[in-house]
Amino acid sequence: MKTTLLQFEPTYLQKTNNLDRVERLLDPGGVLDADLVVLPELFATGYFFRSTDDALTVAEEARDGETTRRLHQWAHASGATFVAGLVEREGERLYNSAVVVTPRGWLGTYRKVHLYYQEKSHFQPGNTGFPVWTVTDRKGHAYRLGVMICFDWYFPESARALALGGADVIAHPSNLVRPDCPRSMPIRALENHVFTMTANRVGAETNGQESLKFIGQSTICDVHGHVLASAGPEETALVHATFEPTEARNRRLNAANDLFADRRPDVYTPLTAA
Amino acid sequence: MKTTLLQFEPTYLQKTNNLDRVERLLDPGGVLDADLVVLPELFATGYFFRSTDDALTVAEEARDGETTRRLHQWAHASGATFVAGLVEREGERLYNSAVVVTPRGWLGTYRKVHLYYQEKSHFQPGNTGFPVWTVTDRKGHAYRLGVMICFDWYFPESARALALGGADVIAHPSNLVRPDCPRSMPIRALENHVFTMTANRVGAETNGQESLKFIGQSTICDVHGHVLASAGPEETALVHATFEPTEARNRRLNAANDLFADRRPDVYTPLTAA
Repeated sequence: MKTTLLQFEPTYLQKTNNLDRVERLLDPGGVLDADLVVLPELFATGYFFRSTDDALTVAEEARDGETTRRLHQWAHASGATFVAGLVEREGERLYNSAVVVTPRGWLGTYRKVHLYYQEKSHFQPGNTGFPVWTVTDRKGHAYRLGVMICFDWYFPESARALALGGADVIAHPSNLVRPDCPRSMPIRALENHVFTMTANRVGAETNGQESLKFIGQSTICDVHGHVLASAGPEETALVHATFEPTEARNRRLNAANDLFADRRPDVYTPLTAA
Repeated sequence: MKTTLLQFEPTYLQKTNNLDRVERLLDPGGVLDADLVVLPELFATGYFFRSTDDALTVAEEARDGETTRRLHQWAHASGATFVAGLVEREGERLYNSAVVVTPRGWLGTYRKVHLYYQEKSHFQPGNTGFPVWTVTDRKGHAYRLGVMICFDWYFPESARALALGGADVIAHPSNLVRPDCPRSMPIRALENHVFTMTANRVGAETNGQESLKFIGQSTICDVHGHVLASAGPEETALVHATFEPTEARNRRLNAANDLFADRRPDVYTPLTAA
Protein backbone atom coordinates (compact mmCIF):
# COMPACT_ATOMS: atom_id res chain seq x y z
CA MET A 1 0.00 0.00 0.00
CA LYS A 2 1.33 3.41 -0.96
CA THR A 3 0.98 6.14 1.61
CA THR A 4 1.70 9.86 1.57
CA LEU A 5 1.92 12.70 4.09
CA LEU A 6 1.84 16.37 3.19
CA GLN A 7 3.84 18.79 5.34
CA PHE A 8 3.35 22.49 4.53
CA GLU A 9 2.45 25.88 6.01
CA PRO A 10 -1.17 26.99 5.65
CA THR A 11 -2.17 30.65 5.76
CA TYR A 12 -4.36 31.68 8.70
CA LEU A 13 -8.09 31.67 7.87
CA GLN A 14 -7.50 31.51 4.09
CA LYS A 15 -9.40 28.28 3.68
CA THR A 16 -10.13 28.27 -0.03
CA ASN A 17 -6.62 29.47 -0.86
CA ASN A 18 -5.16 26.77 1.38
CA LEU A 19 -7.30 24.08 -0.26
CA ASP A 20 -6.18 25.28 -3.71
CA ARG A 21 -2.58 25.22 -2.58
CA VAL A 22 -2.83 21.71 -1.15
CA GLU A 23 -4.37 20.53 -4.40
CA ARG A 24 -1.35 21.83 -6.31
CA LEU A 25 1.17 20.49 -3.77
CA LEU A 26 -0.37 17.05 -3.54
CA ASP A 27 -0.75 16.24 -7.14
CA PRO A 28 1.22 18.56 -9.38
CA GLY A 29 1.19 16.08 -12.26
CA GLY A 30 -2.37 14.85 -11.77
CA VAL A 31 -1.11 11.33 -11.13
CA LEU A 32 -1.48 10.89 -7.35
CA ASP A 33 -1.27 7.13 -6.91
CA ALA A 34 -1.29 6.81 -3.10
CA ASP A 35 -3.80 4.59 -1.36
CA LEU A 36 -3.82 6.71 1.78
CA VAL A 37 -2.99 10.40 2.21
CA VAL A 38 -2.71 12.12 5.59
CA LEU A 39 -2.83 15.93 5.88
CA PRO A 40 -2.09 17.99 9.01
CA GLU A 41 -4.46 19.00 11.79
CA LEU A 42 -6.60 22.03 10.81
CA PHE A 43 -4.72 21.96 7.52
CA ALA A 44 -6.95 24.41 5.63
CA THR A 45 -7.56 27.02 8.34
CA GLY A 46 -4.45 27.58 10.41
CA TYR A 47 -4.25 26.70 14.09
CA PHE A 48 -3.67 29.46 16.63
CA PHE A 49 -7.05 31.21 16.60
CA ARG A 50 -7.10 34.77 17.85
CA SER A 51 -10.71 34.30 18.96
CA THR A 52 -13.49 31.76 18.88
CA ASP A 53 -15.14 34.05 16.32
CA ASP A 54 -12.15 33.51 14.05
CA ALA A 55 -12.54 29.76 14.46
CA LEU A 56 -16.25 30.04 13.72
CA THR A 57 -15.61 31.79 10.39
CA VAL A 58 -13.82 28.68 9.10
CA ALA A 59 -15.90 26.04 10.90
CA GLU A 60 -17.97 23.58 8.91
CA GLU A 61 -19.96 20.39 9.15
CA ALA A 62 -17.76 17.34 9.02
CA ARG A 63 -19.91 15.40 6.55
CA ASP A 64 -20.35 17.93 3.81
CA GLY A 65 -18.52 21.18 4.45
CA GLU A 66 -16.22 22.84 1.95
CA THR A 67 -13.15 20.94 3.15
CA THR A 68 -14.78 17.53 3.10
CA ARG A 69 -16.19 18.21 -0.37
CA ARG A 70 -12.74 19.08 -1.66
CA LEU A 71 -11.25 16.03 0.01
CA HIS A 72 -13.92 13.94 -1.69
CA GLN A 73 -13.10 15.46 -5.07
CA TRP A 74 -9.44 14.56 -4.57
CA ALA A 75 -10.29 11.08 -3.31
CA HIS A 76 -12.68 10.43 -6.20
CA ALA A 77 -10.24 11.73 -8.81
CA SER A 78 -7.23 9.84 -7.46
CA GLY A 79 -8.65 6.73 -5.79
CA ALA A 80 -6.90 7.60 -2.50
CA THR A 81 -8.44 7.74 0.98
CA PHE A 82 -7.75 11.01 2.85
CA VAL A 83 -7.43 11.77 6.56
CA ALA A 84 -7.32 15.50 7.33
CA GLY A 85 -8.05 17.95 10.12
CA LEU A 86 -10.74 20.63 10.14
CA VAL A 87 -12.73 22.89 12.47
CA GLU A 88 -15.96 20.99 12.95
CA ARG A 89 -19.14 22.80 13.89
CA GLU A 90 -22.07 20.94 15.37
CA GLY A 91 -24.79 23.33 16.45
CA GLU A 92 -23.04 25.86 18.71
CA ARG A 93 -20.13 23.57 19.48
CA LEU A 94 -16.74 23.45 17.81
CA TYR A 95 -14.47 20.41 17.71
CA ASN A 96 -10.90 19.97 16.57
CA SER A 97 -11.71 17.07 14.25
CA ALA A 98 -10.29 14.89 11.53
CA VAL A 99 -12.36 13.31 8.78
CA VAL A 100 -11.79 10.11 6.85
CA VAL A 101 -12.87 10.58 3.24
CA THR A 102 -12.72 7.75 0.70
CA PRO A 103 -13.41 7.85 -3.05
CA ARG A 104 -17.04 7.15 -2.07
CA GLY A 105 -17.18 10.15 0.25
CA TRP A 106 -17.14 10.93 3.96
CA LEU A 107 -16.64 7.80 6.06
CA GLY A 108 -16.20 9.10 9.59
CA THR A 109 -15.06 11.81 11.98
CA TYR A 110 -12.71 11.71 14.95
CA ARG A 111 -12.94 14.57 17.48
CA LYS A 112 -9.68 15.28 19.30
CA VAL A 113 -9.83 13.88 22.84
CA HIS A 114 -6.83 15.67 24.41
CA LEU A 115 -6.99 19.40 23.69
CA TYR A 116 -3.76 21.37 23.85
CA TYR A 117 -3.32 24.79 25.40
CA GLN A 118 -5.62 27.47 23.95
CA GLU A 119 -7.61 24.93 21.98
CA LYS A 120 -9.51 24.60 25.25
CA SER A 121 -10.82 28.14 24.74
CA HIS A 122 -12.42 27.31 21.40
CA PHE A 123 -13.11 23.58 21.16
CA GLN A 124 -15.08 21.00 23.08
CA PRO A 125 -13.19 17.85 24.14
CA GLY A 126 -13.81 15.03 21.69
CA ASN A 127 -16.77 12.74 22.35
CA THR A 128 -16.22 10.13 19.65
CA GLY A 129 -13.85 7.90 21.60
CA PHE A 130 -11.21 6.32 19.39
CA PRO A 131 -13.10 4.84 16.43
CA VAL A 132 -11.49 2.56 13.84
CA TRP A 133 -12.75 2.20 10.28
CA THR A 134 -12.37 -0.51 7.67
CA VAL A 135 -11.01 0.99 4.46
CA THR A 136 -9.91 -0.57 1.20
CA ASP A 137 -6.85 0.29 -0.81
CA ARG A 138 -7.16 0.80 -4.56
CA LYS A 139 -6.71 -2.92 -5.17
CA GLY A 140 -9.68 -3.62 -2.92
CA HIS A 141 -7.67 -5.01 0.00
CA ALA A 142 -9.22 -4.08 3.33
CA TYR A 143 -7.30 -2.65 6.26
CA ARG A 144 -8.26 -0.95 9.52
CA LEU A 145 -7.62 2.75 10.00
CA GLY A 146 -7.64 4.72 13.25
CA VAL A 147 -7.13 8.43 13.77
CA MET A 148 -5.66 10.49 16.57
CA ILE A 149 -4.74 14.17 16.48
CA CYS A 150 -1.51 15.87 17.59
CA PHE A 151 -1.35 16.09 21.44
CA ASP A 152 -3.11 12.72 21.69
CA TRP A 153 0.37 11.22 21.13
CA TYR A 154 1.45 12.24 24.64
CA PHE A 155 -1.12 9.91 26.20
CA PRO A 156 -0.20 6.28 25.46
CA GLU A 157 -3.84 5.36 25.97
CA SER A 158 -4.79 6.99 22.63
CA ALA A 159 -2.75 4.80 20.32
CA ARG A 160 -3.38 1.81 22.59
CA ALA A 161 -7.16 2.22 22.34
CA LEU A 162 -6.90 2.47 18.55
CA ALA A 163 -4.69 -0.61 18.28
CA LEU A 164 -6.96 -2.59 20.60
CA GLY A 165 -9.84 -1.45 18.37
CA GLY A 166 -8.09 -3.18 15.50
CA ALA A 167 -6.24 -0.32 13.80
CA ASP A 168 -3.48 -1.48 11.47
CA VAL A 169 -2.59 2.11 10.65
CA ILE A 170 -2.88 5.19 12.88
CA ALA A 171 -3.22 8.42 10.91
CA HIS A 172 -2.00 11.30 13.06
CA PRO A 173 -2.80 14.78 11.68
CA SER A 174 -0.77 17.23 13.76
CA ASN A 175 0.26 20.82 14.42
CA LEU A 176 3.10 19.91 16.77
CA VAL A 177 4.87 22.54 18.81
CA ARG A 178 6.40 20.37 21.55
CA PRO A 179 9.76 18.78 20.73
CA ASP A 180 9.22 15.23 21.95
CA CYS A 181 6.75 13.76 19.49
CA PRO A 182 9.27 12.73 16.82
CA ARG A 183 11.09 10.44 19.26
CA SER A 184 7.86 9.21 20.83
CA MET A 185 5.89 8.11 17.78
CA PRO A 186 8.29 5.26 16.96
CA ILE A 187 7.58 3.95 20.46
CA ARG A 188 3.82 4.26 19.92
CA ALA A 189 4.28 2.17 16.75
CA LEU A 190 6.53 -0.34 18.52
CA GLU A 191 4.47 -0.86 21.67
CA ASN A 192 1.27 -1.35 19.64
CA HIS A 193 2.81 -3.03 16.58
CA VAL A 194 1.00 -0.65 14.23
CA PHE A 195 1.99 1.69 11.43
CA THR A 196 1.83 5.39 12.30
CA MET A 197 1.59 8.38 9.97
CA THR A 198 2.20 11.77 11.57
CA ALA A 199 1.47 14.66 9.17
CA ASN A 200 2.67 17.85 10.77
CA ARG A 201 2.75 21.45 9.62
CA VAL A 202 5.64 23.92 9.53
CA GLY A 203 5.94 27.68 10.02
CA ALA A 204 4.75 29.85 12.89
CA GLU A 205 1.54 31.60 13.95
CA THR A 206 0.73 34.32 16.43
CA ASN A 207 -2.55 34.84 18.21
CA GLY A 208 -1.66 38.48 18.88
CA GLN A 209 -0.07 37.84 22.30
CA GLU A 210 2.35 35.05 21.58
CA SER A 211 3.55 32.91 18.74
CA LEU A 212 3.86 29.20 18.22
CA LYS A 213 6.48 27.56 16.03
CA PHE A 214 5.53 24.24 14.45
CA ILE A 215 8.24 21.60 14.28
CA GLY A 216 7.62 19.72 11.02
CA GLN A 217 9.42 16.34 11.09
CA SER A 218 6.41 14.49 9.71
CA THR A 219 7.10 10.77 10.03
CA ILE A 220 5.85 7.38 8.90
CA CYS A 221 6.79 4.49 11.25
CA ASP A 222 6.57 0.75 10.75
CA VAL A 223 5.32 -1.83 13.24
CA HIS A 224 8.83 -2.29 14.66
CA GLY A 225 9.05 1.37 15.58
CA HIS A 226 11.44 2.16 12.76
CA VAL A 227 11.12 5.33 10.71
CA LEU A 228 10.20 4.48 7.12
CA ALA A 229 10.26 8.09 5.90
CA SER A 230 10.35 11.57 7.40
CA ALA A 231 10.62 15.26 6.55
CA GLY A 232 12.80 18.01 7.95
CA PRO A 233 11.75 20.60 10.55
CA GLU A 234 10.97 23.47 8.17
CA GLU A 235 10.44 22.21 4.63
CA THR A 236 7.32 21.86 2.56
CA ALA A 237 7.40 18.19 1.64
CA LEU A 238 5.56 15.10 0.54
CA VAL A 239 6.62 12.02 2.52
CA HIS A 240 6.02 8.63 0.95
CA ALA A 241 6.21 5.06 2.24
CA THR A 242 4.95 1.72 1.02
CA PHE A 243 3.96 -0.98 3.49
CA GLU A 244 1.57 -3.89 4.03
CA PRO A 245 -0.92 -2.78 6.72
CA THR A 246 -2.07 -6.25 7.72
CA GLU A 247 1.49 -6.96 8.90
CA ALA A 248 0.29 -5.17 12.04
CA ARG A 249 -1.91 -8.10 13.00
CA ASN A 250 0.76 -10.65 13.90
CA ARG A 251 1.92 -9.54 17.32
CA ARG A 252 3.99 -12.63 18.19
CA LEU A 253 7.43 -11.73 19.51
CA ASN A 254 8.63 -15.33 19.92
CA ALA A 255 7.21 -18.78 20.62
CA ALA A 256 5.92 -17.70 24.04
CA ASN A 257 4.99 -14.03 23.74
CA ASP A 258 2.25 -12.17 21.89
CA LEU A 259 2.11 -8.46 22.55
CA PHE A 260 -1.66 -8.33 22.98
CA ALA A 261 -2.34 -11.82 24.37
CA ASP A 262 0.25 -11.05 27.07
CA ARG A 263 -1.57 -7.92 28.20
CA ARG A 264 -3.00 -8.09 31.74
CA PRO A 265 -6.15 -5.94 31.79
CA ASP A 266 -6.89 -7.24 35.29
CA VAL A 267 -3.99 -5.19 36.68
CA TYR A 268 -4.50 -2.15 34.43
CA THR A 269 -7.57 -0.93 36.30
CA PRO A 270 -5.87 2.26 37.59
CA LEU A 271 -5.83 3.48 33.97
CA THR A 272 -9.60 3.69 33.74
CA ALA A 273 -10.34 4.73 37.32
CA ALA A 274 -12.22 8.05 37.36
CA MET B 1 18.76 12.37 46.22
CA LYS B 2 21.68 10.22 45.09
CA THR B 3 20.87 7.14 43.08
CA THR B 4 22.98 4.28 41.76
CA LEU B 5 22.51 1.38 39.35
CA LEU B 6 24.82 -1.63 39.17
CA GLN B 7 25.34 -3.30 35.79
CA PHE B 8 27.37 -6.53 35.85
CA GLU B 9 27.39 -10.20 34.82
CA PRO B 10 26.31 -12.69 37.47
CA THR B 11 27.38 -16.34 37.31
CA TYR B 12 24.59 -18.88 36.81
CA LEU B 13 23.31 -20.39 40.07
CA GLN B 14 26.31 -19.15 42.11
CA LYS B 15 24.16 -17.12 44.47
CA THR B 16 26.52 -16.63 47.39
CA ASN B 17 29.44 -15.88 45.11
CA ASN B 18 27.32 -13.38 43.18
CA LEU B 19 26.23 -11.67 46.39
CA ASP B 20 29.84 -11.42 47.53
CA ARG B 21 30.82 -10.01 44.16
CA VAL B 22 28.04 -7.40 44.21
CA GLU B 23 29.11 -6.36 47.69
CA ARG B 24 32.64 -5.69 46.41
CA LEU B 25 31.45 -3.96 43.23
CA LEU B 26 28.93 -1.74 44.97
CA ASP B 27 31.00 -0.43 47.74
CA PRO B 28 34.70 -1.02 47.21
CA GLY B 29 35.65 1.75 49.63
CA GLY B 30 32.94 1.08 52.19
CA VAL B 31 31.51 4.54 51.63
CA LEU B 32 28.37 3.91 49.60
CA ASP B 33 26.41 7.15 50.00
CA ALA B 34 23.49 6.59 47.62
CA ASP B 35 19.93 6.97 48.84
CA LEU B 36 18.57 4.45 46.36
CA VAL B 37 20.38 1.54 44.67
CA VAL B 38 18.80 -0.57 41.91
CA LEU B 39 20.28 -3.96 40.96
CA PRO B 40 19.29 -6.10 37.95
CA GLU B 41 16.52 -8.67 37.69
CA LEU B 42 17.53 -12.04 39.19
CA PHE B 43 20.85 -10.42 39.97
CA ALA B 44 22.22 -13.10 42.27
CA THR B 45 21.10 -16.22 40.41
CA GLY B 46 21.41 -15.74 36.67
CA TYR B 47 18.43 -15.74 34.35
CA PHE B 48 18.12 -18.41 31.68
CA PHE B 49 17.22 -21.43 33.81
CA ARG B 50 17.93 -24.81 32.27
CA SER B 51 15.07 -26.30 34.29
CA THR B 52 12.55 -25.35 36.93
CA ASP B 53 14.63 -27.51 39.28
CA ASP B 54 17.57 -25.18 38.69
CA ALA B 55 15.35 -22.20 39.53
CA LEU B 56 14.15 -23.99 42.68
CA THR B 57 17.70 -24.45 43.94
CA VAL B 58 18.13 -20.67 44.14
CA ALA B 59 14.55 -19.74 45.09
CA GLU B 60 13.86 -18.12 48.43
CA GLU B 61 11.24 -16.33 50.46
CA ALA B 62 11.07 -12.66 49.59
CA ARG B 63 10.89 -11.42 53.18
CA ASP B 64 13.83 -13.19 54.70
CA GLY B 65 15.74 -15.29 52.21
CA GLU B 66 19.51 -15.14 51.77
CA THR B 67 19.33 -12.37 49.17
CA THR B 68 16.99 -10.16 51.16
CA ARG B 69 19.12 -10.61 54.28
CA ARG B 70 22.22 -9.52 52.39
CA LEU B 71 20.36 -6.56 50.90
CA HIS B 72 19.30 -5.62 54.41
CA GLN B 73 22.89 -5.80 55.64
CA TRP B 74 23.96 -3.48 52.85
CA ALA B 75 21.02 -1.13 53.43
CA HIS B 76 21.63 -1.04 57.16
CA ALA B 77 25.37 -0.46 56.78
CA SER B 78 25.05 2.24 54.12
CA GLY B 79 21.69 3.89 54.77
CA ALA B 80 20.56 3.24 51.20
CA THR B 81 17.31 1.63 50.05
CA PHE B 82 17.76 -1.29 47.61
CA VAL B 83 15.57 -2.62 44.83
CA ALA B 84 16.75 -5.95 43.43
CA GLY B 85 15.42 -9.02 41.62
CA LEU B 86 15.29 -12.57 42.98
CA VAL B 87 13.59 -15.92 42.46
CA GLU B 88 10.75 -15.87 44.94
CA ARG B 89 9.27 -19.07 46.26
CA GLU B 90 5.84 -19.12 47.85
CA GLY B 91 4.78 -22.68 48.62
CA GLU B 92 5.17 -24.56 45.35
CA ARG B 93 5.02 -21.42 43.22
CA LEU B 94 7.91 -19.42 41.83
CA TYR B 95 7.75 -15.75 40.91
CA ASN B 96 10.19 -13.49 39.12
CA SER B 97 10.15 -10.84 41.85
CA ALA B 98 11.88 -7.71 43.03
CA VAL B 99 12.14 -6.68 46.65
CA VAL B 100 12.37 -3.24 48.20
CA VAL B 101 14.70 -3.33 51.21
CA THR B 102 15.36 -0.28 53.36
CA PRO B 103 17.78 0.15 56.27
CA ARG B 104 14.91 -1.11 58.44
CA GLY B 105 14.51 -4.27 56.37
CA TRP B 106 12.17 -5.75 53.80
CA LEU B 107 9.44 -3.29 52.76
CA GLY B 108 7.67 -4.97 49.89
CA THR B 109 7.74 -7.31 46.92
CA TYR B 110 6.69 -6.84 43.31
CA ARG B 111 6.04 -9.96 41.23
CA LYS B 112 6.67 -9.50 37.50
CA VAL B 113 3.37 -9.16 35.64
CA HIS B 114 4.53 -9.66 32.05
CA LEU B 115 6.68 -12.79 31.79
CA TYR B 116 9.10 -13.06 28.88
CA TYR B 117 9.74 -16.18 26.82
CA GLN B 118 10.86 -19.21 28.84
CA GLU B 119 10.15 -17.47 32.12
CA LYS B 120 6.63 -18.78 31.48
CA SER B 121 7.96 -22.32 31.99
CA HIS B 122 9.20 -21.58 35.49
CA PHE B 123 7.35 -18.63 36.99
CA GLN B 124 3.77 -17.72 37.78
CA PRO B 125 2.53 -14.38 36.39
CA GLY B 126 2.71 -11.68 39.03
CA ASN B 127 -0.31 -11.20 41.28
CA THR B 128 0.75 -8.10 43.20
CA GLY B 129 -0.51 -5.53 40.69
CA PHE B 130 1.75 -2.48 40.55
CA PRO B 131 2.29 -1.41 44.17
CA VAL B 132 3.97 1.87 45.15
CA TRP B 133 5.78 2.38 48.45
CA THR B 134 6.65 5.47 50.45
CA VAL B 135 10.36 5.51 51.19
CA THR B 136 12.61 8.08 52.82
CA ASP B 137 16.02 9.17 51.70
CA ARG B 138 18.87 9.41 54.21
CA LYS B 139 17.83 12.96 55.12
CA GLY B 140 14.35 11.73 55.98
CA HIS B 141 12.60 13.19 52.94
CA ALA B 142 9.81 10.96 51.72
CA TYR B 143 9.27 9.93 48.11
CA ARG B 144 7.18 7.32 46.37
CA LEU B 145 8.84 4.31 44.76
CA GLY B 146 7.34 1.89 42.23
CA VAL B 147 8.90 -1.19 40.69
CA MET B 148 8.52 -2.94 37.36
CA ILE B 149 10.74 -5.67 35.92
CA CYS B 150 12.34 -5.90 32.49
CA PHE B 151 9.70 -6.89 29.84
CA ASP B 152 7.06 -4.83 31.71
CA TRP B 153 8.57 -1.83 29.85
CA TYR B 154 7.03 -2.99 26.58
CA PHE B 155 3.51 -2.49 27.98
CA PRO B 156 2.85 1.21 28.60
CA GLU B 157 0.21 0.23 31.14
CA SER B 158 2.93 -0.87 33.61
CA ALA B 159 4.66 2.47 34.07
CA ARG B 160 1.31 4.25 33.76
CA ALA B 161 -0.22 2.24 36.59
CA LEU B 162 2.81 2.99 38.78
CA ALA B 163 2.71 6.71 38.01
CA LEU B 164 -1.03 6.87 38.63
CA GLY B 165 -0.35 5.08 41.91
CA GLY B 166 1.86 7.99 42.86
CA ALA B 167 5.35 6.74 41.98
CA ASP B 168 7.94 9.50 41.70
CA VAL B 169 10.62 7.00 40.77
CA ILE B 170 10.23 3.73 38.87
CA ALA B 171 12.97 1.22 39.67
CA HIS B 172 13.33 -1.20 36.77
CA PRO B 173 15.52 -4.25 37.46
CA SER B 174 16.13 -5.90 34.09
CA ASN B 175 17.81 -8.66 32.13
CA LEU B 176 17.09 -7.13 28.73
CA VAL B 177 17.71 -9.04 25.56
CA ARG B 178 15.47 -7.09 23.15
CA PRO B 179 17.05 -4.00 21.57
CA ASP B 180 14.26 -1.44 21.96
CA CYS B 181 14.15 -0.76 25.68
CA PRO B 182 16.93 1.87 25.77
CA ARG B 183 15.02 4.13 23.37
CA SER B 184 11.66 3.38 25.00
CA MET B 185 12.41 4.09 28.65
CA PRO B 186 12.91 7.84 28.05
CA ILE B 187 9.39 7.87 26.60
CA ARG B 188 8.03 6.00 29.65
CA ALA B 189 9.64 8.73 31.80
CA LEU B 190 8.33 11.53 29.58
CA GLU B 191 4.74 10.34 29.18
CA ASN B 192 4.39 9.76 32.94
CA HIS B 193 6.64 12.57 34.15
CA VAL B 194 8.55 10.23 36.45
CA PHE B 195 12.17 9.28 37.02
CA THR B 196 13.13 5.83 35.76
CA MET B 197 16.08 3.65 36.76
CA THR B 198 16.76 0.64 34.54
CA ALA B 199 19.46 -1.64 35.99
CA ASN B 200 20.35 -4.21 33.36
CA ARG B 201 22.87 -7.03 33.26
CA VAL B 202 25.51 -7.82 30.65
CA GLY B 203 27.01 -11.03 29.30
CA ALA B 204 25.30 -14.10 27.84
CA GLU B 205 23.71 -17.29 29.13
CA THR B 206 22.72 -20.56 27.52
CA ASN B 207 19.98 -22.90 28.68
CA GLY B 208 21.58 -25.78 26.82
CA GLN B 209 19.63 -25.26 23.59
CA GLU B 210 20.08 -21.59 22.87
CA SER B 211 21.82 -18.57 24.30
CA LEU B 212 20.65 -15.10 25.22
CA LYS B 213 22.84 -12.02 25.05
CA PHE B 214 22.01 -9.24 27.50
CA ILE B 215 22.30 -5.70 26.19
CA GLY B 216 23.51 -3.63 29.18
CA GLN B 217 22.85 0.07 28.55
CA SER B 218 21.48 0.63 32.07
CA THR B 219 19.91 4.07 32.15
CA ILE B 220 18.55 6.69 34.56
CA CYS B 221 16.00 9.09 32.99
CA ASP B 222 14.55 12.32 34.30
CA VAL B 223 10.91 13.42 34.19
CA HIS B 224 11.43 15.11 30.81
CA GLY B 225 12.55 11.84 29.25
CA HIS B 226 16.18 12.86 29.14
CA VAL B 227 18.96 10.44 29.99
CA LEU B 228 20.75 11.53 33.16
CA ALA B 229 23.32 8.74 33.09
CA SER B 230 23.84 5.44 31.30
CA ALA B 231 26.29 2.56 30.83
CA GLY B 232 27.60 0.87 27.71
CA PRO B 233 26.34 -2.41 26.25
CA GLU B 234 29.00 -4.72 27.70
CA GLU B 235 30.75 -3.10 30.65
CA THR B 236 30.52 -3.75 34.36
CA ALA B 237 29.57 -0.34 35.69
CA LEU B 238 28.06 1.74 38.44
CA VAL B 239 25.74 4.44 37.08
CA HIS B 240 25.04 7.44 39.28
CA ALA B 241 22.57 10.32 39.09
CA THR B 242 21.31 12.90 41.54
CA PHE B 243 17.76 14.24 41.28
CA GLU B 244 14.84 15.53 43.32
CA PRO B 245 12.13 12.85 43.17
CA THR B 246 9.23 15.11 44.14
CA GLU B 247 9.83 17.08 40.94
CA ALA B 248 7.73 14.29 39.38
CA ARG B 249 4.59 15.60 41.04
CA ASN B 250 4.12 18.80 39.06
CA ARG B 251 2.70 17.62 35.75
CA ARG B 252 1.71 21.02 34.39
CA LEU B 253 2.89 21.53 30.82
CA ASN B 254 1.54 25.08 30.47
CA ALA B 255 -1.27 27.26 31.84
CA ALA B 256 -3.93 25.00 30.32
CA ASN B 257 -2.50 21.47 30.40
CA ASP B 258 -1.68 19.03 33.17
CA LEU B 259 -0.54 15.63 32.03
CA PHE B 260 -2.70 13.71 34.48
CA ALA B 261 -5.66 16.08 34.86
CA ASP B 262 -5.99 16.00 31.06
CA ARG B 263 -6.31 12.24 30.98
CA ARG B 264 -9.70 10.96 29.80
CA PRO B 265 -10.36 7.65 31.58
CA ASP B 266 -13.90 7.68 30.18
CA VAL B 267 -12.52 6.91 26.71
CA TYR B 268 -9.73 4.54 27.84
CA THR B 269 -12.11 1.68 28.62
CA PRO B 270 -10.73 -0.57 25.83
CA LEU B 271 -7.51 -0.81 27.86
CA THR B 272 -9.14 -2.66 30.72
CA ALA B 273 -11.67 -4.70 28.75
CA ALA B 274 -11.14 -8.41 29.38
